[in-house]
Amino acid sequence: MSFTIWFTGLSGSGKTTLSRLLFRELKCRSLKAELLDGDIIRTNFSQELGFTKKDRDINVRRIGFVSYLLAKNDVISVVAAIAPYRETREQNRKLIDSYVEVHCNCPLETAERRDVKGLYARARAGEIPNFTGISDPYEEPVAPEIVVNTDKESVSESLGKILCYLEEKGFVPMAHECQMIPFTEDDEFQWKNDLARLGFARAVGPGRSK
Amino acid sequence: MSFTIWFTGLSGSGKTTLSRLLFRELKCRSLKAELLDGDIIRTNFSQELGFTKKDRDINVRRIGFVSYLLAKNDVISVVAAIAPYRETREQNRKLIDSYVEVHCNCPLETAERRDVKGLYARARAGEIPNFTGISDPYEEPVAPEIVVNTDKESVSESLGKILCYLEEKGFVPMAHECQMIPFTEDDEFQWKNDLARLGFARAVGPGRSK
Repeated sequence: MSFTIWFTGLSGSGKTTLSRLLFRELKCRSLKAELLDGDIIRTNFSQELGFTKKDRDINVRRIGFVSYLLAKNDVISVVAAIAPYRETREQNRKLIDSYVEVHCNCPLETAERRDVKGLYARARAGEIPNFTGISDPYEEPVAPEIVVNTDKESVSESLGKILCYLEEKGFVPMAHECQMIPFTEDDEFQWKNDLARLGFARAVGPGRSK
Repeated sequence: MSFTIWFTGLSGSGKTTLSRLLFRELKCRSLKAELLDGDIIRTNFSQELGFTKKDRDINVRRIGFVSYLLAKNDVISVVAAIAPYRETREQNRKLIDSYVEVHCNCPLETAERRDVKGLYARARAGEIPNFTGISDPYEEPVAPEIVVNTDKESVSESLGKILCYLEEKGFVPMAHECQMIPFTEDDEFQWKNDLARLGFARAVGPGRSK
């Protein structure tokens, strides 16, 4: 059964980490899945877009449209993208049949302290305009299917919570019922390499996303 | 076995007609396929793009990227998009594993005489700049997998040629080996309706494509 699972939350809230681990777990359970990371989508689909509300909305809808196409063909989409505006997220929910929203909930201070990509420092210094959480709003989900509190839970705890939900809803088979296959290939890097080799996309370095 | 089949050719050369019929035939043969029409992709992915060489190239690469994602997940893409520049088509060929190019070959005079959307008349009147065949080049494929001469062949003849190729290469099973299922839903209209209903895209009326 196909579904789309969308990790939304501030930069540094754990979206990429959790989405990659979930993606790997789904592949191990022999499911068809695609990892749609905001950075990669921006590079390949939306290189002309900036970070105004309008541009962010276009980008989030585009990811929604790709998920819709994949879902129609029984492929699971695992999306990691800030998607800061509630209304746009709700539009995707309406478009996509089985839509699971995961709110990576984490106080701004924690995300800012992590500052994995050094973006918060630059945003505070005024070098990056329209930065979610600093100079642009993040509208928290009102009724997400899953909330993970990434400042309090371990990564395994959050991942476990997500998998339990998906199993309970019948979206994924229980681990012990699957023929587990090792999955070592990092699909995302595969993409990046494929695309970079062909001059399709510049290498995705530390940068802004979503 | 998954593949991408790309119908390239002038506006009015028969791309949409043939792609729709092929798509329907693939669905009847119980294959997973998606119809990617230049108009729909423009509306949903590329509403900000114009018709300069740069913008056309971005659009064609985007369609290529969607096809690549679908192909990775064993879904056939049937693409109908002018894709006027040879180099950009070749980039998609490199990205996508099994890429079948169909040149909808038809003299400009014939396409112009058909003028299904009334665009040639407007282009001749100078109302539409960068119009392929009139004020923008169409670089014919050098070694397409299939050429259909839509000014000389009937639609069934062209479609038969395409299906023969796909069967011979093992891309699709022979008709008599398939459990043929009736397929009446027009997937493209389904899209349009879904999307329009949700305010995702304006209705796609007669307009410019690709």
